[in-house]
Amino acid sequence: MSKRKKGNDALRLISLGGVDEIGKNMFVLQYGEECLIVDAGLKFPDESMLGVDIVIPDISYLTTNNFNILGVMLTHGHEDHIGALPYILDDLDLPIFGTRLTLGLLEAKLREHPDMRPRLTEVNPDKVLNLSDNFKLSFFRTNHSIPDSVGVAIETPAGLIVYTGDFKFDQTPVDGRITDYHKLAELGRKGVVAALIDSTNADRPGYTLSEKEVGKSINEIFRLSQSRIILATFASNIHRIQQVVNAAVRYERKVCVVGRSIVNSVEIATELGYLKIPDGVMIELDKVKETKPEKMVLITTGSQGEPMSALTRISQSEHRQVEVQPGDTVIIAANPIPGNEKLVARTVNNLFQLKADVIYRPVSGVHVSGHASEEEIKLMLNLLRPKYLIPVHGEFRQMVACSKIAQKLGMPEDNVFLVKPGQVMEFSEGQGRINGSVPAGRILVDGFGVGDVGEVVIRDRHILSEDGIVVIVLAVDPEKGTLLAGPEIVTRGFVYVRESIDLLDNAKESLMRAISRINGVEMQEWNKVKSRIRDAASSFFYEHTGRRPMIMPIIIDVPPKEKSGQ
Amino acid sequence: MSKRKKGNDALRLISLGGVDEIGKNMFVLQYGEECLIVDAGLKFPDESMLGVDIVIPDISYLTTNNFNILGVMLTHGHEDHIGALPYILDDLDLPIFGTRLTLGLLEAKLREHPDMRPRLTEVNPDKVLNLSDNFKLSFFRTNHSIPDSVGVAIETPAGLIVYTGDFKFDQTPVDGRITDYHKLAELGRKGVVAALIDSTNADRPGYTLSEKEVGKSINEIFRLSQSRIILATFASNIHRIQQVVNAAVRYERKVCVVGRSIVNSVEIATELGYLKIPDGVMIELDKVKETKPEKMVLITTGSQGEPMSALTRISQSEHRQVEVQPGDTVIIAANPIPGNEKLVARTVNNLFQLKADVIYRPVSGVHVSGHASEEEIKLMLNLLRPKYLIPVHGEFRQMVACSKIAQKLGMPEDNVFLVKPGQVMEFSEGQGRINGSVPAGRILVDGFGVGDVGEVVIRDRHILSEDGIVVIVLAVDPEKGTLLAGPEIVTRGFVYVRESIDLLDNAKESLMRAISRINGVEMQEWNKVKSRIRDAASSFFYEHTGRRPMIMPIIIDVPPKEKSGQ
Repeated sequence: MSKRKKGNDALRLISLGGVDEIGKNMFVLQYGEECLIVDAGLKFPDESMLGVDIVIPDISYLTTNNFNILGVMLTHGHEDHIGALPYILDDLDLPIFGTRLTLGLLEAKLREHPDMRPRLTEVNPDKVLNLSDNFKLSFFRTNHSIPDSVGVAIETPAGLIVYTGDFKFDQTPVDGRITDYHKLAELGRKGVVAALIDSTNADRPGYTLSEKEVGKSINEIFRLSQSRIILATFASNIHRIQQVVNAAVRYERKVCVVGRSIVNSVEIATELGYLKIPDGVMIELDKVKETKPEKMVLITTGSQGEPMSALTRISQSEHRQVEVQPGDTVIIAANPIPGNEKLVARTVNNLFQLKADVIYRPVSGVHVSGHASEEEIKLMLNLLRPKYLIPVHGEFRQMVACSKIAQKLGMPEDNVFLVKPGQVMEFSEGQGRINGSVPAGRILVDGFGVGDVGEVVIRDRHILSEDGIVVIVLAVDPEKGTLLAGPEIVTRGFVYVRESIDLLDNAKESLMRAISRINGVEMQEWNKVKSRIRDAASSFFYEHTGRRPMIMPIIIDVPPKEKSGQ
Repeated sequence: MSKRKKGNDALRLISLGGVDEIGKNMFVLQYGEECLIVDAGLKFPDESMLGVDIVIPDISYLTTNNFNILGVMLTHGHEDHIGALPYILDDLDLPIFGTRLTLGLLEAKLREHPDMRPRLTEVNPDKVLNLSDNFKLSFFRTNHSIPDSVGVAIETPAGLIVYTGDFKFDQTPVDGRITDYHKLAELGRKGVVAALIDSTNADRPGYTLSEKEVGKSINEIFRLSQSRIILATFASNIHRIQQVVNAAVRYERKVCVVGRSIVNSVEIATELGYLKIPDGVMIELDKVKETKPEKMVLITTGSQGEPMSALTRISQSEHRQVEVQPGDTVIIAANPIPGNEKLVARTVNNLFQLKADVIYRPVSGVHVSGHASEEEIKLMLNLLRPKYLIPVHGEFRQMVACSKIAQKLGMPEDNVFLVKPGQVMEFSEGQGRINGSVPAGRILVDGFGVGDVGEVVIRDRHILSEDGIVVIVLAVDPEKGTLLAGPEIVTRGFVYVRESIDLLDNAKESLMRAISRINGVEMQEWNKVKSRIRDAASSFFYEHTGRRPMIMPIIIDVPPKEKSGQ
């Protein structure tokens, strides 16, 4: 330790989680050679990342350095906080810390990776986790759209760093467990050097409503409904599921949970005591038909219009076991996540076509956010009184909004760090600054491939998706440079071939002319021939169709020796 | 006429405009052999229609029958009401009727088609258009997000049919031209058989705010701002542009209009007197740099985050003439159209990165809708008192909402027709019913191709966009069925080739084994060989990558004769 340069004695704080819009959730705290990871979330690809399944953070900073990594602390069980963990554990065998439900959900997730033997340590707000001389962790309960969420306070040689995790202040949470206001106050009293604060809703004025308000709306729907009810929500929103169960009990309906992920999370939450379902309320899917529709509520996923989800399939009459009956009440208990609006709209339209009554408008009160609005962020800042603020989780616009909120409370703009992934914040002796950066970015996962799909592949997929491909094959005698056969032209995703025979015939003629202008010597230089063919085909097709398909010339060598040898 | 069957004497009303979600704008009224077209809109493709430029209605019902088509009546100048016209005029040489600004915008549009000589007839609310014994048209002024919008009342042998066009009730319109309430009342008094009503916002309670409210917000921003202002809105929203100009005059700023489409519409609207700009207010783009930022407002397009629009390029620092300065105020005076949320968010994030102050939240009051909310639809129904209601323009969910509104006012549910494109509504002797259907649907336009891109091509583009393509080329002696060269494997959009040499080498070996199992006779049956190769490659790549690229085997015949002849 004594050999380290003085500069290393600052606490380094780095967000690795930024993947596209900044601010997804994976943070590294580093002191000397010692590191702590907080959260390890994945992101779902946006529409530009064609064919990509998920996006995870680049952790090469951690894998290529010989750090002593103490472990990963998880604040709650959402995918954008735990989803990258299986990939990280592939490279780094680390202990994992989290609350009971968080670890329960993680274990279920890791069942798909039977070779992994994660070392899990349960934490809770009454515990202090002494990881090393440099990192002492304590926790405070928060309210969010999943139970058992916590924020974490990390005592470091540079002072107290607090990360709220995802939070809102719900004064009447469904499970009665309010935020640890007193702990937050105590942290603020002690003095917080830097706070990483969930800024997802920082651009919304006022307060986020209590989840109990959703309960009221659901109760009202149950009270009035004389038909079957189908409610779609996020699989992990256990509080909301609890409220649906409560309404079902009150209005004497049976509950059936439909969809793999929600069955899964209901099972785990029930087992661990986070969801309380009286005996006899829950029935299996195959018993639904025996139950009177007006005595039934189905809880399912698909509130984002996800193509493979239960509700989407139900709305397309493609679910094997659930069929919408005219008059069914369908509740979409969620707001569309940006980018999903069209998918949700399509589901709603389809459900109306099936003559369901669909409750989907934000004004209907069947959804509230799990993130703090402006006034709650103010309260958090006033409780914690951090010297420095690092807005996290939101897009850049919300990070800016969070910064403005802090400024309204008197924080100097310079004390807010709007950092990009990889930028290093250093804290020592009560001072913070941005000092350089480390490798960071997004890794695309497609099938089994982690990181092998990069810009080149995505760019090609874009070209292919816009105008398709034209493959042009020539067989050439590599010695004489003479054309033996071809050009054969084959297309996909470009034109409807049956109706484009003339076009392709003319293209072939045009290519023959272009090729005939190439002399024998040049013919042996594949790259030149290919580029001539590409140019000729490109202009021909653009002129005749106004499209720019990918042109792929392939020259196949047919050596005369083989020929004569046969 | 006397030879026609009695059944033909009903008035037929058909929506041809439905393209994806139901309800886009093109209607046909038919009486006997006589037809009238009302509106002829295009739609922009949704994200599933890869590579498609625009979507227009299938008009084969009109082109394959020998109707006497009287012309096309246009209600206003938006693309979703006039955009398909150039394509329709390609097939049908028809007179066109519309108000002054509508025709002005159409003429500008048709300048790209110099061969077209459209016969344009200007209409206005004071005119009656006697097209034939069966079709007499009169017009009523409406308020919408473009000036000179009208609704149309069509007197037919089956009674009065009224189409509102796109409308809201703006009691304080920017141009002072309020809706023709008295005409609507008169129509209602005469008796309306069927009304086609804009249901776009039917699922929004209350009233849509007046465009003047936007003016107030804009004024307030101008009053407080000490920096340059950049405001993005729809090019055709002349009222809004007028209000920005008014604010600029009041607060002594110069105005510069940036972006081809908005320059165009400002020019037309000014020429025709719909936009009033005092001398000396407008300056050219190249004079902007000479003007103090706090004395400048730029009006531009890109409020939907459209990739090629001015604001998007500005936000990416890619606009050649406009650069955002820290502190600039950027106003996004629009709500994202469903599907555009991500694009808009990206533009906003980028602008914040450039240290602009961005006003984009719906609560900021810089945008109001151009469509009627629930209470306005009620007022329209109470004025017109139609016997039958046909909700149009909205998605299916809004059509259902419109139907429910009518039912609240006492209309029987059976009197509301929620029709799919092509379904025929028949009206005679005061009675309406749905009776069969005619061909209808969407035609995809891609480059110069109108309709040649169909399901097959789109499906291929989807496969290509997800996992790319693997082309496998073999050269074969067609007589002996022997393999002369190959298999050559070339991929695009599948894996990053430089890092996948082993994978592709192994694939080649695996294919060689598969091919070696094919005997000589089979080798002459291309389809069999291709399907064997396809299967072998498909399993190999799925097993090794978890991806399902398009597999395209190409067999090129290299005849021995040509070979020996050389």
